[in-house]
Amino acid sequence: MTKLLSLNPDRLFPAEATTRAIARRLYEEVRALPIISPHGHTDPSWFADDAPFTDAVDLLLAPDHYLYRMLYSQGVDLADLGVPDRNGAPNIDRRKAWRIFARNFRLFRGTPSSLWLNHVFAEVFGFDVALEETTSDLYYDRINEMLARADFKPRALFERFNIEVLATTEGPADTLEHHAKIRASGWSGRVITTYRPDPVVDVEHEAFGEAMQIFAALTGQDVLDWRGYLAAHRQRRADFRAAGATATDHGHPTARTLDLAPVQAEALFRRIMTGKAEPGDAEAFRAQMLTEMARMSLEDGMVMQIHAGSSRNHNRPLLKSHGRDKGADIPQATEYVNGLRPLLDRFGNEKALNIILFTLDETVYSRELAPLAGHYPSLKLGPAWWFHDSPEGMMRFREQTTETAGFYNTVGFNDDTRAFLSIPARHDVARRVDCAFLARLVAEGRLDEDDAAQVAGDLAYALPKAAYRLS
Amino acid sequence: MTKLLSLNPDRLFPAEATTRAIARRLYEEVRALPIISPHGHTDPSWFADDAPFTDAVDLLLAPDHYLYRMLYSQGVDLADLGVPDRNGAPNIDRRKAWRIFARNFRLFRGTPSSLWLNHVFAEVFGFDVALEETTSDLYYDRINEMLARADFKPRALFERFNIEVLATTEGPADTLEHHAKIRASGWSGRVITTYRPDPVVDVEHEAFGEAMQIFAALTGQDVLDWRGYLAAHRQRRADFRAAGATATDHGHPTARTLDLAPVQAEALFRRIMTGKAEPGDAEAFRAQMLTEMARMSLEDGMVMQIHAGSSRNHNRPLLKSHGRDKGADIPQATEYVNGLRPLLDRFGNEKALNIILFTLDETVYSRELAPLAGHYPSLKLGPAWWFHDSPEGMMRFREQTTETAGFYNTVGFNDDTRAFLSIPARHDVARRVDCAFLARLVAEGRLDEDDAAQVAGDLAYALPKAAYRLS
Amino acid sequence: MTKLLSLNPDRLFPAEATTRAIARRLYEEVRALPIISPHGHTDPSWFADDAPFTDAVDLLLAPDHYLYRMLYSQGVDLADLGVPDRNGAPNIDRRKAWRIFARNFRLFRGTPSSLWLNHVFAEVFGFDVALEETTSDLYYDRINEMLARADFKPRALFERFNIEVLATTEGPADTLEHHAKIRASGWSGRVITTYRPDPVVDVEHEAFGEAMQIFAALTGQDVLDWRGYLAAHRQRRADFRAAGATATDHGHPTARTLDLAPVQAEALFRRIMTGKAEPGDAEAFRAQMLTEMARMSLEDGMVMQIHAGSSRNHNRPLLKSHGRDKGADIPQATEYVNGLRPLLDRFGNEKALNIILFTLDETVYSRELAPLAGHYPSLKLGPAWWFHDSPEGMMRFREQTTETAGFYNTVGFNDDTRAFLSIPARHDVARRVDCAFLARLVAEGRLDEDDAAQVAGDLAYALPKAAYRLS
Repeated sequence: MTKLLSLNPDRLFPAEATTRAIARRLYEEVRALPIISPHGHTDPSWFADDAPFTDAVDLLLAPDHYLYRMLYSQGVDLADLGVPDRNGAPNIDRRKAWRIFARNFRLFRGTPSSLWLNHVFAEVFGFDVALEETTSDLYYDRINEMLARADFKPRALFERFNIEVLATTEGPADTLEHHAKIRASGWSGRVITTYRPDPVVDVEHEAFGEAMQIFAALTGQDVLDWRGYLAAHRQRRADFRAAGATATDHGHPTARTLDLAPVQAEALFRRIMTGKAEPGDAEAFRAQMLTEMARMSLEDGMVMQIHAGSSRNHNRPLLKSHGRDKGADIPQATEYVNGLRPLLDRFGNEKALNIILFTLDETVYSRELAPLAGHYPSLKLGPAWWFHDSPEGMMRFREQTTETAGFYNTVGFNDDTRAFLSIPARHDVARRVDCAFLARLVAEGRLDEDDAAQVAGDLAYALPKAAYRLS
Repeated sequence: MTKLLSLNPDRLFPAEATTRAIARRLYEEVRALPIISPHGHTDPSWFADDAPFTDAVDLLLAPDHYLYRMLYSQGVDLADLGVPDRNGAPNIDRRKAWRIFARNFRLFRGTPSSLWLNHVFAEVFGFDVALEETTSDLYYDRINEMLARADFKPRALFERFNIEVLATTEGPADTLEHHAKIRASGWSGRVITTYRPDPVVDVEHEAFGEAMQIFAALTGQDVLDWRGYLAAHRQRRADFRAAGATATDHGHPTARTLDLAPVQAEALFRRIMTGKAEPGDAEAFRAQMLTEMARMSLEDGMVMQIHAGSSRNHNRPLLKSHGRDKGADIPQATEYVNGLRPLLDRFGNEKALNIILFTLDETVYSRELAPLAGHYPSLKLGPAWWFHDSPEGMMRFREQTTETAGFYNTVGFNDDTRAFLSIPARHDVARRVDCAFLARLVAEGRLDEDDAAQVAGDLAYALPKAAYRLS
Repeated sequence: MTKLLSLNPDRLFPAEATTRAIARRLYEEVRALPIISPHGHTDPSWFADDAPFTDAVDLLLAPDHYLYRMLYSQGVDLADLGVPDRNGAPNIDRRKAWRIFARNFRLFRGTPSSLWLNHVFAEVFGFDVALEETTSDLYYDRINEMLARADFKPRALFERFNIEVLATTEGPADTLEHHAKIRASGWSGRVITTYRPDPVVDVEHEAFGEAMQIFAALTGQDVLDWRGYLAAHRQRRADFRAAGATATDHGHPTARTLDLAPVQAEALFRRIMTGKAEPGDAEAFRAQMLTEMARMSLEDGMVMQIHAGSSRNHNRPLLKSHGRDKGADIPQATEYVNGLRPLLDRFGNEKALNIILFTLDETVYSRELAPLAGHYPSLKLGPAWWFHDSPEGMMRFREQTTETAGFYNTVGFNDDTRAFLSIPARHDVARRVDCAFLARLVAEGRLDEDDAAQVAGDLAYALPKAAYRLS
């Protein structure tokens, strides 16, 4: 017998009747608010070219590391799912790849992936039967059929999803041509970029050399000279702002910062650029660059995001065979109190500076991040990130930060995704979980319901817009 | 329209009806028990002089770091709130300061500060409208008017609050004159002191030199000699006991202890006192002194409190401009298993020793503190502290310690506050949260309700009294 | 008035009616499934000899470190409870020891020990009054009386408990004679062993030298030679497999692994065996041996368990007076991401390898273990362990691992106990808590109830059987 698929209208709300009723009322206030997506990884060429998406495997399975990491952990070969290796995308029977996924869909029970996917299946594609082995072909054919339609092209979906603004993320070596094309097209959708300078900041990144060459070419600066290097950043930041960017983003293995004297900073830079780097120099340079970026943010008003704590490409054999970003990034313990201190000593009390902190180490929510954000005017807390972008993870974030940092030192939700179709699902989960948390506070007499309604609206819409300076 | 203020009689109880009913019954048993406040920071001169409190800003806003740190984090200047800097208290329009607070009261939504303050506003001052911009002057005037009345003087409030015993905290350089005056006054209120020797133990404390001079003067000991220094401690401990003290308190950045051979301890002390301290000596001395204090506790029966893990005055520019204790203390990861071992190797198995451990690092509840306290006869667990003295924080404390340490290796609640008016509110929150936790155990068939009622009474009254030897 | 004892049929289920009803239905599906006990510490001689258990103190109190550590923490002398010291078991009045326990039973309120014991008292011995001072003798006499009966002998209880398979744990110096006797007896009960080589891997273990001698004697290998040493392990692994073992177990203070070149590994081994060990060599050798064991597991198919993170025998005076394993093991922070990397670089992508990870540091659930197990084909997560083998601990395990690792990278429950009579109680707690967690997911619209029922059955029965290769 085929299993039915239907989205429970009360999903993610507490079962207890009084609390659920409050959650419903709060959610009703925020359900239909436009989506603010200030940080993510969708491909700007989708909106520049507005070509139809290829097919179910290419769109939904092969690029989604949440999915293939779980399947891989249970013995499925990445090649069988269409995940590219160093030699490019494998030549596979896509229908078969989809069947493997369908057959193993039970692995995702209790995970956010199943919540997001079922939302996409039901709401975007209109399925009313569940994905399993017996419905695999039905799904595969129907999805591909719909993706070919005009109303499933990127811009049409963007409008249907009620997205008010969507930020992509590009590196300093990016020409921003897709963003230029979007703006030139006259389309009203607001798709903006974000400056993520990691490729020219992280000396240990395998593409560092190449990125530096393009960085020099695009800016005309002598990027091997410390002053030229900083000038090139300023120039590219201006380019990015011209392409709509209001924020930068920094993905570092730690939250360490440094505030070296100019002479020392220059010496560090020279050691690195002349191949004379000493142990710790790469880390010191990343640390110093966070402070440099904060300085530039004070100059140009860009919001600064710090995503710290991922041990990237943990699986070395897989890195060798398949390259980066194959679901093998693992969080690690991350220290902020001492790590951020040099930057904060320099700029922490600046009201005009907006630094948004993210973590993969939940132990710092109550111990470090909420106390820091509840004191420093420059600090705000980004939402539960990556592995913690989930109902339980979001709830822990609120439970462990609110009492010390309040709601107003947080910045609402980031979907942080390349899975474009899941964006409404992800924001819906965040809104529901926040309403569930607020409903509990109301039910327990800790917050008035009208105050809670205002907070719900702020979290869903006003706070991300303000924190990312998107007005 | 003005928002009403009323305290939900079921606040902090779970919404689920069966559990709530049990929580209500348990709470009814402990609601009116006298307050035991064995650790806090109220000013003994209040009770010695029994003068009226000055005004709303001086009493409720300017000294409360929970409040001004949050306002500061959102861009409010400390000067505008009446918070003193290095040059003393700013000369401000107090009514305006109160208005800033009132206008920003929404920042405290979901925080314990709003719970405590609303309790104070409703129960102590009788307000029935909420604090917001439009009621700011009403609040300001009414509070000031009431504070001038005889029944709002410190001793009257002490009695109205049903406080059985209140411990303040003083340093070794304190003359204890206020406590003497209280005792000499014939007033029946029991206000006792606590011996907190940090100023003469923490070499890195800026007032170390000055404190040592007074320490010498008050004791007549040669405190620059190791034996004289220890004798001075013994003497002051006796002075403090004469002023009612039953406990000492130690606020250290880490939980590290040492048990050096006497010769080594003396050498360490001499290096420090002769300006020949080596890196790590300050930390080693604090560590050694915890063991010395444990030794003295065995001699004189004083309970020993260790408050470990705060990175004090994290904001250096603010420390420079405003001095210590300005809401910029940030918790840090704190290790107890190896840190406490030298002290425990020496005295851990002593049944007559009572060491109460506190932490700002919640990760150690289940991993380190509960296992330690569930084994060593000398160790007990203090309640959720500081940033974690909150409904969610207290609940996590119970959830993460009870199964390994039980209830009877914990010591009930500490309000740990200088905000005198909030003491009943804080104890009420603790009693409610404990009853909520117990009610869940009962509702889930994990504890009989009559056993739960006994535990509730023990946590609210019997355990703190016994653990701090206050009978 | 004597307190009654009755087990609440809904114990450990959420109080909320809808969720409780779901939990009941899920539990009904798994309640009576046979017990798979793939890891524990019962004594195989019980089943070999099938002699009656001695008495209540010897069976239930003196060997249970959960019980005597709590009593010790509250000032009870171990000698008074019959806990042996270095001179052997104390000669005590057993009835009096039981009375001490009965009088202090309130210390266990809210702990898993009281859940387990009350289950044993009610279900195994049929008590309907609670254990307290007034019922102490009643309990003592009745238990001893019943233990003398044929239907309370080990094999009879094994069958009554519906145990399908029970694994004990033995070291490389064990002759496995009890397992041989069990197999030779023709009894149908499946009692198997587990290979735990710690005594010949942990150079810092006090019995290392002695264990190595027996290791040599039992295998006939030159175990002081690196190749001979490895061959001896292979031989003993084969012996253990012949005694039913499907798994090895490794109790290490850290999760560190190494993958040294053969020449280096041999040099390390030689330094250790010739008394020339350098600082860190003992840790390095344990680390290297985990990788060697993984290599052997790939050869012989044995499942590999890693129990990391206990600081054993923390109480040095007690270790001196009473020896190892006296309730003084304390967890410590444990790092897996970098620690496991050498082993994972070598064997992490092997589908045929099954490594089950355990931790005493709950912070790694969401930060390290779930992300690792949700990626590497060789890794699975063992259940909440030791201090965390408790309702709250199990719930945190599910809440913090499921969203990233799913249910199918976990392996169901381990009772890990030497308290044979409590095995049904422990599995019952695990089944109830899992059903409670699943019921919440269903009630919150995150999982279909029929999927949840399938997961419940998998967690209770299918997953442990598969993960430990017990079919």
